[in-house]
Amino acid sequence: MTGTSRIPSALDPAIAARLKRSVDGLVPAIAQQYDTGEVLMLGWMDDEALHRTLSTGRATYWSRSRREYWVKGDTSGHVQHVKSVALDCDADTVLVKVDQIGAACHTGARTCFDADVLSLGQ
Amino acid sequence: MTGTSRIPSALDPAIAARLKRSVDGLVPAIAQQYDTGEVLMLGWMDDEALHRTLSTGRATYWSRSRREYWVKGDTSGHVQHVKSVALDCDADTVLVKVDQIGAACHTGARTCFDADVLSLGQ
Repeated sequence: MTGTSRIPSALDPAIAARLKRSVDGLVPAIAQQYDTGEVLMLGWMDDEALHRTLSTGRATYWSRSRREYWVKGDTSGHVQHVKSVALDCDADTVLVKVDQIGAACHTGARTCFDADVLSLGQ
Repeated sequence: MTGTSRIPSALDPAIAARLKRSVDGLVPAIAQQYDTGEVLMLGWMDDEALHRTLSTGRATYWSRSRREYWVKGDTSGHVQHVKSVALDCDADTVLVKVDQIGAACHTGARTCFDADVLSLGQ
């Protein structure tokens, strides 16, 4: 463990029991705009970030670079209001449907996937 | 390295140079239905899986459990025809827009996120 997995957290033990974390204690969390379907960004959650996301209604991630919890929008104002949260079939990925205020990307783009489209067929 | 990152691969060196891999040499790859916007599943790619996805037009992942390349649909028939591929702003996540034939999930569900919706507010 690298200190990212803060167990025990207040996450529902029934969820914690089936969550399959990577070696660093994290799971990838896909943020999707709930009405348009846009994939906005991918963040990372440990148990406590998932708990805070579920309990506060504000998407909360673990920043791997800053090594701290990160409530999306606290600095930028670009808040993600949580509409639904689901685990995938292997319980190793989270899909968070949100209402994204403003830009999801720190570059100012609406999504983090707008700028770097790769060429196919080569 | 755990053997998952097969460098050199035939991936365009300009892409390989900016790709930011996790410690196991992989990046998460989000598969999204190109027209409806459904998030179908999350897989993992190394350089070679990304190269094969770009060059063949068939979404190709690295299976962490089986430790082999996995051309989605080769066994199930549930092929993903690639429509576009983008990197995110940090070049550490891939978004693959596909046309998913049949069910994306091995459970037979359309997406891997259909079955396990978590409760909010607790």
